[in-house]
Amino acid sequence: MYTAFITVTLRPAILDPQGKATHHALQNLGFEKINSVRIGKYMELQVSADTKEDAEVAVRSACDKLLANPVMEDYTVRVEPAG
Amino acid sequence: MYTAFITVTLRPAILDPQGKATHHALQNLGFEKINSVRIGKYMELQVSADTKEDAEVAVRSACDKLLANPVMEDYTVRVEPAG
Repeated sequence: MYTAFITVTLRPAILDPQGKATHHALQNLGFEKINSVRIGKYMELQVSADTKEDAEVAVRSACDKLLANPVMEDYTVRVEPAG
Repeated sequence: MYTAFITVTLRPAILDPQGKATHHALQNLGFEKINSVRIGKYMELQVSADTKEDAEVAVRSACDKLLANPVMEDYTVRVEPAG
């Protein structure tokens, strides 16, 4: 059993209104050191696979088909044995 | 300038209907090796600070006050020099 940690982020060229709104709220709270915020998704998947490589192949396929939008998002995958 | 990488996840005891729905969709697509999905948020912040410690203090304070809900969410913070 493996755990996959996935981050999905908007590509740099894509505007992020949620991040802009959060940045604005932080400024209103006095966080003047924080210059920008970009918001994405984070997912943890439990995967049954014989090897780490098999788990990673399955998870990357899931990202390509469902979890990320390849037109406007990038993703990272890290797989570790489930502890 | 530092970049802070934040993950915000629902506490284990909190139900995650978004993750459950995503898991169901993955099963419908034939991803039978994936046993569970939990979904959280991922944020990247650009922070102006003199030291990494100062940046981390500011970001953790922002998490406590706005970015995470301490009642039902946990967060992790990693700070690195902006590249």
